[in-house]
Amino acid sequence: MKISCTPHKASLHHENCQVLFCIIFSQIYTGSGGFLGVILKKIHEPADLKNLSLQELEQLAGEIRKFMIEVISKRGGHLASSLGVVELTIALHFVFNAPHDKILWDVGHQCYTHKILTGRQEQFTKIRCYDGISGFPKRRESLYDVFGVGHSSTSLSAALGIAQARDLLGKNNFVINIIGDGALTGGMALEALNFAGEKKTDLLVILNDNEMSIDQNIGGLPSYLAKLRTDPKYSRLKEDLEHVLERIPAIGRTVLRSAERLKDSIKYLLVPGMLFEELGFTYLGPIDGHSIPKLVNLFREVKSVHGPVLVHAVTKKGKGYVPAEKNPHVFHGVGPFNKKTGEPLSANKKSQPTYSKVFSTSLEKLAAADRSIVAITAAMAAGTGLETFARRWPQRFFDVGIAEQHAVTMAAGLATEGLKPVVAIYSTFLQRAYDQILHDVCLQNLPVVFAVDRAGLVGEDGETHNGVFDFAYLRHLPNIVLMAPASGWELNAMLKMAFALKRPVALRYPRAEAAVFSSPETGTLITGKAQLLREGRDLLILAAGAMVLPALEAHALLLKMGIESCVINSRFIQPLDTELICYWAKKCGRVLTVEEHVLSGGFGSAVLETLEKELQEISLKRLGLPDAFTGQGSRDFLLDLHGLSGEGLAREALKFCQVKERVY
Amino acid sequence: MKISCTPHKASLHHENCQVLFCIIFSQIYTGSGGFLGVILKKIHEPADLKNLSLQELEQLAGEIRKFMIEVISKRGGHLASSLGVVELTIALHFVFNAPHDKILWDVGHQCYTHKILTGRQEQFTKIRCYDGISGFPKRRESLYDVFGVGHSSTSLSAALGIAQARDLLGKNNFVINIIGDGALTGGMALEALNFAGEKKTDLLVILNDNEMSIDQNIGGLPSYLAKLRTDPKYSRLKEDLEHVLERIPAIGRTVLRSAERLKDSIKYLLVPGMLFEELGFTYLGPIDGHSIPKLVNLFREVKSVHGPVLVHAVTKKGKGYVPAEKNPHVFHGVGPFNKKTGEPLSANKKSQPTYSKVFSTSLEKLAAADRSIVAITAAMAAGTGLETFARRWPQRFFDVGIAEQHAVTMAAGLATEGLKPVVAIYSTFLQRAYDQILHDVCLQNLPVVFAVDRAGLVGEDGETHNGVFDFAYLRHLPNIVLMAPASGWELNAMLKMAFALKRPVALRYPRAEAAVFSSPETGTLITGKAQLLREGRDLLILAAGAMVLPALEAHALLLKMGIESCVINSRFIQPLDTELICYWAKKCGRVLTVEEHVLSGGFGSAVLETLEKELQEISLKRLGLPDAFTGQGSRDFLLDLHGLSGEGLAREALKFCQVKERVY
Repeated sequence: MKISCTPHKASLHHENCQVLFCIIFSQIYTGSGGFLGVILKKIHEPADLKNLSLQELEQLAGEIRKFMIEVISKRGGHLASSLGVVELTIALHFVFNAPHDKILWDVGHQCYTHKILTGRQEQFTKIRCYDGISGFPKRRESLYDVFGVGHSSTSLSAALGIAQARDLLGKNNFVINIIGDGALTGGMALEALNFAGEKKTDLLVILNDNEMSIDQNIGGLPSYLAKLRTDPKYSRLKEDLEHVLERIPAIGRTVLRSAERLKDSIKYLLVPGMLFEELGFTYLGPIDGHSIPKLVNLFREVKSVHGPVLVHAVTKKGKGYVPAEKNPHVFHGVGPFNKKTGEPLSANKKSQPTYSKVFSTSLEKLAAADRSIVAITAAMAAGTGLETFARRWPQRFFDVGIAEQHAVTMAAGLATEGLKPVVAIYSTFLQRAYDQILHDVCLQNLPVVFAVDRAGLVGEDGETHNGVFDFAYLRHLPNIVLMAPASGWELNAMLKMAFALKRPVALRYPRAEAAVFSSPETGTLITGKAQLLREGRDLLILAAGAMVLPALEAHALLLKMGIESCVINSRFIQPLDTELICYWAKKCGRVLTVEEHVLSGGFGSAVLETLEKELQEISLKRLGLPDAFTGQGSRDFLLDLHGLSGEGLAREALKFCQVKERVY
Repeated sequence: MKISCTPHKASLHHENCQVLFCIIFSQIYTGSGGFLGVILKKIHEPADLKNLSLQELEQLAGEIRKFMIEVISKRGGHLASSLGVVELTIALHFVFNAPHDKILWDVGHQCYTHKILTGRQEQFTKIRCYDGISGFPKRRESLYDVFGVGHSSTSLSAALGIAQARDLLGKNNFVINIIGDGALTGGMALEALNFAGEKKTDLLVILNDNEMSIDQNIGGLPSYLAKLRTDPKYSRLKEDLEHVLERIPAIGRTVLRSAERLKDSIKYLLVPGMLFEELGFTYLGPIDGHSIPKLVNLFREVKSVHGPVLVHAVTKKGKGYVPAEKNPHVFHGVGPFNKKTGEPLSANKKSQPTYSKVFSTSLEKLAAADRSIVAITAAMAAGTGLETFARRWPQRFFDVGIAEQHAVTMAAGLATEGLKPVVAIYSTFLQRAYDQILHDVCLQNLPVVFAVDRAGLVGEDGETHNGVFDFAYLRHLPNIVLMAPASGWELNAMLKMAFALKRPVALRYPRAEAAVFSSPETGTLITGKAQLLREGRDLLILAAGAMVLPALEAHALLLKMGIESCVINSRFIQPLDTELICYWAKKCGRVLTVEEHVLSGGFGSAVLETLEKELQEISLKRLGLPDAFTGQGSRDFLLDLHGLSGEGLAREALKFCQVKERVY
């Protein structure tokens, strides 16, 4: 029993390394031989832009691009979106006066230029690091970050709140919201668009139309935007019509007995963005989102227009960096890459397929044999591994765009007709469909399978993207079966089982390589039955999903210390295997529950509930993530930091056993 | 210790009375002197409509109205909405062939005619009874109820799923979705509208435009619809324009050098519902939704139109019953009333104000003294008690329409500017904003106060409207303070406290008269501190919110049996008062937690978590609602049924103490 209870060295070492790397990297950039261009070097706040000429602003755009590509090629990040709005961001900060004027970014991954221009050049080199700045706007980071974002389609609502507050408080600042065409397919953005039209509050919405969300956009609205962008009749209409109208009176008054009515309705012809006009906006555009002079002129004009204004700016994702322009998908969220070629730097070649990959492979195998299987996602086809499915069975694949609520309820509709829908959405984005899972799927006990990807810590995207609440928001839903696979094999088996269950099922798995057990896999799964992996009498380690592997590692470490731990792979979070858990919990007297999830309302809490009657005979401790928003950093690093590694668990187990011995 | 453990007599008595009443009432209606008209009597399924003449269909509409008013005047229900679609429903069932053709109702409270025409005339007399049919479409109730609804704006997504399934399965049925103009402001309906435009699947959407949701509609979209309805230029436009166009060639070819472009764009002038056309729909309307001949003609024509079609039907809420036409608000969801006058039958005069009333009174008092307080709701101004606030401070009041997500994030925006927003939304509808509460409010630790009304059982609306999941979906959110007042006084005090806390706060209270304690109220609340109401050594009854009063009743009953129970009013669900709870839990050795909420993930579960280290010294049992969807019935009746009355709790306490004594 010599294992130490001092802070984990490996973990600290890892952390120090990461911090050290950031410091060195940061010094390289900001040193005399740095990558900051001559103009960029002088920009410490947006006010420094004001005296630049349009030509200098254009030069600045080039310098920012160079700097951004340099940093992100090392660091990874949302490069393509940020490259697409360099000019737009410069023009905004040139014309408006932040932070007096409020600039809100939707989703926020396109905020890199904004961060670079608002006093965070140096910190930018540490973007997405554990101890660096966030890849998204954060209120706590800067006064210029007016509203924190990360999930799509929220910013227009926030901007409306800020605009209404301005009016109530008698202030006179501008409120500017930049929102992508993809984000506009999200229901809450449409709710806000509708509300803005009613309220007539002064508000500038810049529709950053780059023709895609993460994946291709879906829906009537994007088609409409495409038409506005590309169809010459929309732009030339105005002049044509003016000619026509000039001549019409010559036809004679009788025909024009409804002249006034007609005149009113002529705006249908004059205004290309009629859809937005109908909703109460003044529509201006489309405008070239990469022309600083045009943008500056328009923004200056817009200052005098009252009520909600929508500027339709057409931009190119990845603009100015050929590999990103060619493959904006790849450079949406990209890891470190070779700056010259755009090729990924894959130093750590993955040894195992990811859970997403296992899911897609398994799903395709099942779908090949069963034509009733259909797949639905919400702008996450690539991320969830559904691209091949989409190519193989385009009729059976539905990417609804950024519209999680619709995705879930449409799946419920498909299920009523006997189809077998699987809805693949990241844990953090599925939060948006909580009501639909409850009210449309579970209440009707419909057989919809939820493939909850990116469950647990997701790494550098940080707190807005971690999927650490899904046990809590799913397990109390009546009728649901909630599973967490501990290995790739198990995900495969669980998916097969899920379709057979004919009820709502959620499978929850992390953004990680799929674990492989050394122990033989069990051939079949039975609903609500856990898996005993190691027998032992000293304590029970009861692990959910991805925490099973570290639990096995802890078991081995503890064994060396003479502690015989029992390890159970819970497999099911709802329903729990009360019988098996109870038996071994009583036998051991001590239970450690382990989960990659906040402690409140999670797996451990479910175990407490199921053992309610037995708790006087058992000492139970729940391990998991703190009840807080866990920040950015690599998943492995953060798991380690929070004691959710094999060594971390062994340490906790040891402490637990020692404490217990004192009590007894 | 003589209290019996047999089923609660009062409860059974109550239940029997309710059942008996339903039976008698049902017999009255279906007996020879019943209220069924001569045609209605012969309608046992929609096929029975097919041979009726248009005149007979119109007579049938009158008979249905009479029957509906008769039943709902006794039973209460959503009368106004259902009266508004009598003709529409008849025309649909006359032209289409349900259940082969799928008819989906949004929200579903307008489904009474549909139920009456689809073999449920007799059961209709028991609508909303504990043992009767639901007031909403239910799949388990009838093959004609294709998709269960209750929450707004879901049905278009479900209809799209069903239509896609039809296409995949090679079937040929029609899919018809009836959705109100109010429901169209809900984000998920807009997501679905956008998706429908893309998919071009055959689908008939009937926009039931009655110019209101529960309250007045909000936004650019409703304004647009109003314009379509009322502005003669929209309806007369077509003929005018045709005249103009006929003459234009005479002007000469030069002017019309872009004739083709112009022709294409002329549809802007010809089609009044351009907004829908832009999204990919064929728009037809507006049409008089009370004219059976017109509806029948149009529906017959629509059968041959491919792709998504939107029929814009204008109806009048409450149509055909003068009191309901005059006050559609009042007759939206109405209790029993005098059929002749429309006056409510208020046999049981309420002795105390409701929690909603206490909330509104308290809020107005606070708002009068603090101009930074603003109130937001989502089409629930009347229900949440905000109508007076809205009249007194229209600038500080925001009804966003059916748009809970937008409501919450806009509140977050208001909060960033130093205002103090309170968001008043029913517990069941707030589910839709789970992601926004988490991501936009809690993550940024913004001071938004949630007034979570209708938390717990709501009565006759049943399972879709019960607010019995909010502890589970709110308490794990980092930074939140979650409270449940046990009395009107406490709601008042908590609301005051909530604004002072400067962080996310949720107050959760039921659809009930506010409780009044006999014990003196404590003057101040302290965050995370519970209230010791009764001291005792035999067991601790730890109650949340509305369950405190029954806990006190149980205390008194137990005292008569010689059992001294300790009663603690938890006040806070997050954070919990670990110290006080732990002290008394250990002192008593037995803890009963009590909540009006499902057991899974609820208040009791939070207590288990907080007592984790002490559970070996304590026997704990959680009381609450079963982990299932609790159906319809009066709140008092259902609470009683589930043992959540004073007597029920006393019985459980007694059992608990006896069991314990055997163990020790």
